Amino acid sequence: GKTLKILVLAGDGIGPEVTQQAVHALRSVADLGGHHFEFKEMAIGGVAIKKEGSPLPSSTLEAALDSDAVLLGAVGGNEFNQLPPDRRPEAGLLGLRQALGGFANLRPSFAWPSLSSNSPLKPEVVEGSDILFVRELLGGLYFGEPRQWDRETNSAWNTMRYTRDEVVRVTRIAFELAGKRRKKVTSVDKANVLEVSQLWRATVTEVARDYPDVALDHQYVDACAMHLMNTPRNFDVVVTENLFGDILSDEAAVITGSLGMLPSATIGGAVNLYEPVHGSAPDIAGKGLANPLGAILTAAMLLRHSGGLESDAQAIEASVRQVLEQGYRTADLARSSSPGIQVVTTQEMGKQVNETL
Amino acid sequence: GKTLKILVLAGDGIGPEVTQQAVHALRSVADLGGHHFEFKEMAIGGVAIKKEGSPLPSSTLEAALDSDAVLLGAVGGNEFNQLPPDRRPEAGLLGLRQALGGFANLRPSFAWPSLSSNSPLKPEVVEGSDILFVRELLGGLYFGEPRQWDRETNSAWNTMRYTRDEVVRVTRIAFELAGKRRKKVTSVDKANVLEVSQLWRATVTEVARDYPDVALDHQYVDACAMHLMNTPRNFDVVVTENLFGDILSDEAAVITGSLGMLPSATIGGAVNLYEPVHGSAPDIAGKGLANPLGAILTAAMLLRHSGGLESDAQAIEASVRQVLEQGYRTADLARSSSPGIQVVTTQEMGKQVNETL
Ligand SMILES: CC(C)[C@H](C(=O)O)[C@@H](O)C(=O)O
Ligand SMILES: CC(C)[C@H](C(=O)O)[C@@H](O)C(=O)O
Repeated sequence: GKTLKILVLAGDGIGPEVTQQAVHALRSVADLGGHHFEFKEMAIGGVAIKKEGSPLPSSTLEAALDSDAVLLGAVGGNEFNQLPPDRRPEAGLLGLRQALGGFANLRPSFAWPSLSSNSPLKPEVVEGSDILFVRELLGGLYFGEPRQWDRETNSAWNTMRYTRDEVVRVTRIAFELAGKRRKKVTSVDKANVLEVSQLWRATVTEVARDYPDVALDHQYVDACAMHLMNTPRNFDVVVTENLFGDILSDEAAVITGSLGMLPSATIGGAVNLYEPVHGSAPDIAGKGLANPLGAILTAAMLLRHSGGLESDAQAIEASVRQVLEQGYRTADLARSSSPGIQVVTTQEMGKQVNETL
Repeated sequence: GKTLKILVLAGDGIGPEVTQQAVHALRSVADLGGHHFEFKEMAIGGVAIKKEGSPLPSSTLEAALDSDAVLLGAVGGNEFNQLPPDRRPEAGLLGLRQALGGFANLRPSFAWPSLSSNSPLKPEVVEGSDILFVRELLGGLYFGEPRQWDRETNSAWNTMRYTRDEVVRVTRIAFELAGKRRKKVTSVDKANVLEVSQLWRATVTEVARDYPDVALDHQYVDACAMHLMNTPRNFDVVVTENLFGDILSDEAAVITGSLGMLPSATIGGAVNLYEPVHGSAPDIAGKGLANPLGAILTAAMLLRHSGGLESDAQAIEASVRQVLEQGYRTADLARSSSPGIQVVTTQEMGKQVNETL
């Protein structure tokens, strides 16, 4: 059996309810496989602001750095919308990402066969799609200095900045992952306008030479936003800078049919960070409506990337597939009430996955 | 009749062939309506680099400033991909945009009924969609200083910058246009992370108070990229910064079924600029495959916004609708060969529109 210290940061909105189901899945895997997973829970985001006056209390940060993996729910809430970026719940998440040091945010966007009718895209367009976004997570506009809202001049600015080394390291991860998949990398930039994208493109092109068996394609971000919808099957691994990855991976949620299905793993740093792609969704929080499958699939990524437990990860993924095939759906997935579809709560969905495990 | 001096900048790739058809349509309108349109042609982009060593020769710029409206085709080509941003064909376009001073780029994304099966989105998702993007065109990362690729430190940066006044003026245009439509503005930003977006959101919120009959909604750019695909009918006018508008309006091309259908008008400056949204598409240039309807609909916007010729604009739009209903399609629109569909060349498509006029 394997031993893992997992820090659980459930956060705001639907964070706690979906994270609870992910923890259940991890506990089941531990029981079945004889692993020893030690869970600790701490505060982040809006919850931490209220309890401790900071979106990322130092106790949380210390516990995160002391763990083998961090499992996060979601942060953010409407009541904080008036605060400046550096005091919002999101600042806690961004500070955590930076402190943990993971620069490669892996976001798979997979067309689950039994959900193909859930997508706004035609079934024949999405069927068979299997995209892995590798989003650079520590650079670009999110962290670039200088940044300011200057109230005297009534102007504001942020900086999109990359160094060559930052591009090299995330590109290597993309190519290595592509080598184990369909051997194709699409790098996305805006090199016809931005200097920072020119550095990006030149660096990716250079790194690609070390991976002769993987094909490289460059796309402008505007064109890519369109191609992803027209021909999603043409993509294998997509590597891109922080904000482009934020936008494109959310857009690609429509391939899966719901943001609620999407997991993510951030690797490459001191401690890996695992978070579903969906946000805190305050409007449906606490109502049992949230889809826990994104969080549960995130737990599978934790097993894969922090535990080296590939077969356990696959067991969770197979359970999710089976539960979907049996017709279980949370509200976000149950647009049309077809025969054989059964709408379940967050908890019931988690329970189904556990029983299938 | 109306007199208009129109500068035609056909540019690169498919620019010349589609622009030719747009000019035909304008000539027909002039003949029918007793207008006097004077056309002048000059070079921009790659063609200008080759002929005159600059993507925006001063003669072109002078002629543009001396005209009543500029009709542009497209710029860019693969042979220029190695040049730095400030010497590429695109720099000519960006320099022209800046010199003409138009800050509001209007990009309608309209679900033509007879094209609903062309979209990768389900017909029931796109039917009835009618979105007007108002993209800020002179600010943000495109023009923000400082910007540099520093080869010594191997790093690069661009600046996303806005002043309050820049946001105010484009927001006013969005609200005024929404007042004549379905009275709804969606402002798109990333205010949970970026200071520049916080200024954006605060300013839009303030301007909105002057338009009490128009509803305002704020969305984060990542969420918007998803909502546009899930529920396109929920959008009326979308106002956003330069790069977000670039990405989202290209993405929204899938609502129409093809980028080749999309027109744009840039207003608010000394001289209005009209350009189809599609690029130079070098791979299909000169083959008669390009769709001229984006350029022809752009000509309609020229009549509307520079000529005050609303009924002439509508005549062109009605002709386009009729030609589509009759089953004429350029290659980009003719994915599936259904009965009644006739694939035509760029020239034939232009001719059909003209005859219908
Ligand atoms: C909550 C927000 C700061 C975050 C981001 O933009 O990175 C979210 O949208 C995401 O994609 O994880
Ligand atoms: C060609 C390029 C500079 C341009 C832009 O990014 O503005 C194009 O993509 C557009 O949308 O008009």
